[in-house]
Amino acid sequence: MKIALAQLNYHIGNFEANTKKIIEHIALAKTKGADLVVFAELAICGYPPRDFLEFDEFISLCNEAAQEVAKHCKDIACIVGLPVKNDVLQGKDLFNAAYFLADGKVKAITKKALLPTYDVFDEYRYFEPATNFQCIDFKGKRIALTICEDLWNINDNPLYVSSPMDELIKEQPDLMINIAASPFSYTHDDERIKVLSANAKKYHLPLFYVNQIGAQTEIIFDGGSLVFDAEGALKAELKYFAEDLQVFDLDEIENVRNKYPHPERLTDIEQIHDALILGIQDYFRKSGFSKAVLGLSGGIDSAVVCALACKALGADNVMAVLMPSKFSSGHSVQDALDLANNIGCMHEIIPIKEGADAFDHMLANAFKGLPFNLAEENIQARIRGTIVMAMSNKFGYILLNTSNKSECAVGYGTLYGDMCGAIGVIGDVYKTQVFELAKYINKEREIIPINTIVKPPSAELRPDQKDSDSLPEYDVLDKILYQHIELKQGTAAIIAQGYEETLVKRILRMVNIAEFKRYQTPPILRVSPKAFGMGRRMPIVGKYMI
Amino acid sequence: MKIALAQLNYHIGNFEANTKKIIEHIALAKTKGADLVVFAELAICGYPPRDFLEFDEFISLCNEAAQEVAKHCKDIACIVGLPVKNDVLQGKDLFNAAYFLADGKVKAITKKALLPTYDVFDEYRYFEPATNFQCIDFKGKRIALTICEDLWNINDNPLYVSSPMDELIKEQPDLMINIAASPFSYTHDDERIKVLSANAKKYHLPLFYVNQIGAQTEIIFDGGSLVFDAEGALKAELKYFAEDLQVFDLDEIENVRNKYPHPERLTDIEQIHDALILGIQDYFRKSGFSKAVLGLSGGIDSAVVCALACKALGADNVMAVLMPSKFSSGHSVQDALDLANNIGCMHEIIPIKEGADAFDHMLANAFKGLPFNLAEENIQARIRGTIVMAMSNKFGYILLNTSNKSECAVGYGTLYGDMCGAIGVIGDVYKTQVFELAKYINKEREIIPINTIVKPPSAELRPDQKDSDSLPEYDVLDKILYQHIELKQGTAAIIAQGYEETLVKRILRMVNIAEFKRYQTPPILRVSPKAFGMGRRMPIVGKYMI
Repeated sequence: MKIALAQLNYHIGNFEANTKKIIEHIALAKTKGADLVVFAELAICGYPPRDFLEFDEFISLCNEAAQEVAKHCKDIACIVGLPVKNDVLQGKDLFNAAYFLADGKVKAITKKALLPTYDVFDEYRYFEPATNFQCIDFKGKRIALTICEDLWNINDNPLYVSSPMDELIKEQPDLMINIAASPFSYTHDDERIKVLSANAKKYHLPLFYVNQIGAQTEIIFDGGSLVFDAEGALKAELKYFAEDLQVFDLDEIENVRNKYPHPERLTDIEQIHDALILGIQDYFRKSGFSKAVLGLSGGIDSAVVCALACKALGADNVMAVLMPSKFSSGHSVQDALDLANNIGCMHEIIPIKEGADAFDHMLANAFKGLPFNLAEENIQARIRGTIVMAMSNKFGYILLNTSNKSECAVGYGTLYGDMCGAIGVIGDVYKTQVFELAKYINKEREIIPINTIVKPPSAELRPDQKDSDSLPEYDVLDKILYQHIELKQGTAAIIAQGYEETLVKRILRMVNIAEFKRYQTPPILRVSPKAFGMGRRMPIVGKYMI
Repeated sequence: MKIALAQLNYHIGNFEANTKKIIEHIALAKTKGADLVVFAELAICGYPPRDFLEFDEFISLCNEAAQEVAKHCKDIACIVGLPVKNDVLQGKDLFNAAYFLADGKVKAITKKALLPTYDVFDEYRYFEPATNFQCIDFKGKRIALTICEDLWNINDNPLYVSSPMDELIKEQPDLMINIAASPFSYTHDDERIKVLSANAKKYHLPLFYVNQIGAQTEIIFDGGSLVFDAEGALKAELKYFAEDLQVFDLDEIENVRNKYPHPERLTDIEQIHDALILGIQDYFRKSGFSKAVLGLSGGIDSAVVCALACKALGADNVMAVLMPSKFSSGHSVQDALDLANNIGCMHEIIPIKEGADAFDHMLANAFKGLPFNLAEENIQARIRGTIVMAMSNKFGYILLNTSNKSECAVGYGTLYGDMCGAIGVIGDVYKTQVFELAKYINKEREIIPINTIVKPPSAELRPDQKDSDSLPEYDVLDKILYQHIELKQGTAAIIAQGYEETLVKRILRMVNIAEFKRYQTPPILRVSPKAFGMGRRMPIVGKYMI
């Protein structure tokens, strides 16, 4: 039996586009001699569909699309994921399911049992867990089909309860297929290979695994679909961050003990780079826009975002707006101009002095006798926010947000000012990682001016301001933030690692007090195991660590 | 046995304040002769603690606080809710639990079985469902203790599977106690009485039900704790929107067939009014602020929010900023001034012309030859946003957002402009309901000027603009929005009710396209069964109904 793995980029709720793409890849798999073509989890509607699932109409449209796909499964079988109704009227309304399509119709339905409900996942919000499991017989082979998380609960996992495979294995299947929507983080590809290999080994079956690729707003799917033999050895790996379709001969996977030429893994920074490019591209493509705007300050964050945007969208489609104030140093404008020239994007210089003066006058009476402080600093950031949003409104550019994860964490940014934007490009990238990204971007030639990389970071909202005036040095800050955010360590546990008590308490307090700001920030492209956004849900008016 | 129901207002993560309050109410219950005092679900840490639950330290602090409370349970027993660790290392890390405290220690632990994971609830994200159930014996009586949702799965519910009560009843309890964190919506009080009464009747046991009161950012708990006799008749009802402690004699509830003088229910608008007042008060009190600022346009939305804020915080603590532009009609400023004078709040008049001119000049080159359009309209709204945020930053006022639910739904508002604010006061109140609220506020005397109520709504961002230029009339719009948002109806279903096809498609498209704006709006006080925010999680870059 020849099995095609179709690793595609879906668009949530875009039934027309998804169905067309699936049907085209059925045809392609046929021309490549496949007997069976496998698409990803919820491929019909895209993943995650979120509360679209609460609309009956949406569920009907999923079924209609799948019936359309079925018509094209005549000389080939197909596995495709979609939500299906729970007709028992007991428990949740839906199952996260897959259709096995052959002879032009639905021959079997497989349902997911283990429903991820943590981090960015909310599956128990919508789906009832499956409790009955049955293999699928096709062309003399018995297939144990499972959906994503169903294979993640293996018995070297301390949370192991039982897995649908423990039931399916009793029917003596010949192979396993797992269809997934497994989001990218820079730690996740290794983990995925480890878990899936353990499954193949445990059940002593070859395993075919299909993931999605593509970004759905903030969640990025990296692809990297996999094939293992019955000993858990990796036999093949599809592309990362790109669509791919490959056909495998089951006999060969079962019997040929050839070693897979395991390619060198990408470094974390390379993966993050590729993920962010895909994240930007898909945000624009799927929302129907092609041009971006951003404020370019001469600092490293906006420089990196500008470089990523130019790579993702083409330099012709990126408008960088330089908005110097009276506190901007001369080199800032020059650094920003150098970048724009190095990279060839559009740019405008719009000084904000006139706006700042106007606000000074408008507020003169209300602020009479009061010294310059945070209020005036923020006004400058908000004038810039208003200018780039005006460019966005006038020309249909989409505003990219340039805040990094360290700033987002401690609230070092102005709400409705530099925290504006449709999508946060580097909001899941710590400042120390932003420097690494800059160096990676400059690997072949100097795109980001060296001065932008080496000068001390500054918001330039008052004379001679430096980030280090109000924040600890980023190498210390980022380590403490990582302990708190990624590893969920509280005050005492972090202090116990040798960090200074007042510093730890100050940073954790800043993080927790800034929750009201983060609630109003744009969605952030997720590249770490714990990003701000849907995956981290904190109370706003709380009093823990504050 | 005498049972005290303690209906209190907790603050999430504020262990010091919550513990102190619980201990004080144990003492109060003692002085009133109670044998047992019952506090609400997760009373120790406040509900919903969200991802605070993922910090081991937080769970330890919960246990420490409960041990402190236990010390005060010597001549009285106490039931109090808190998260406890799942030591089995199987499934989720925690249980949503309650301690039964007596003789100065923890005598029993009850765990929740049915974990709401829908709308604003995420309990399966954190908690493992309980599977073992045991009654608590105290003073010769056997208590069937359950937690909130555990009683909501009764057998006239089509989703009925089984309830912990079906197990507990086998031990022949004498009474039921249910501790809850049941959020307010204007439909929920009647529903709650119906469901709980059905439980009392079904199991033929008296039922004591304790809810929380108080707002936790956007979620408002209305209290209204209840007592039923074994026939399901309501015997007592604690206060709504206020703390309360009442003591009941079990014998009397069991044996005296007196009829409860069921007070007249509040109307929906009265309930919404009281909920919003509490929502504002708790947002400020729990975040440590006392003064509010808002933009006052002369229109009905800001007028209603200003009146609510003055009632909640005192007129002395509310600063209304009038920011007329060249498009503001003369009556707008006068209407706003009339309101400020009627109500006695602080006010400032800050015309925005100078700011608008400055942006015109700053953008003159970039916008050369292009006509006035949405870009310039939005600049005005963003100048206003910047001014009120400057007032906030300078004086420590908290900015109230004044967008209504109809506007939020269709995206009729300027992001970073009039969509700014720390908390959305009327973002879950449709425009037609805002008019009703205004009339209710004016019941005793004219607070909101009649002209504000009767004039046609306008954003006043260009000459002679009216909302009805770009939106359908609000009475039609709100009905369609209600079908789509509250009742989750798709295009076809709404058209089938007799609404015009192009209108329905246009409105649903507006709603779904505005998702990117709503992602960045402030948290919105929830008063309906389906509010924007955590309870409605839609894809941003999706293509359903667009």
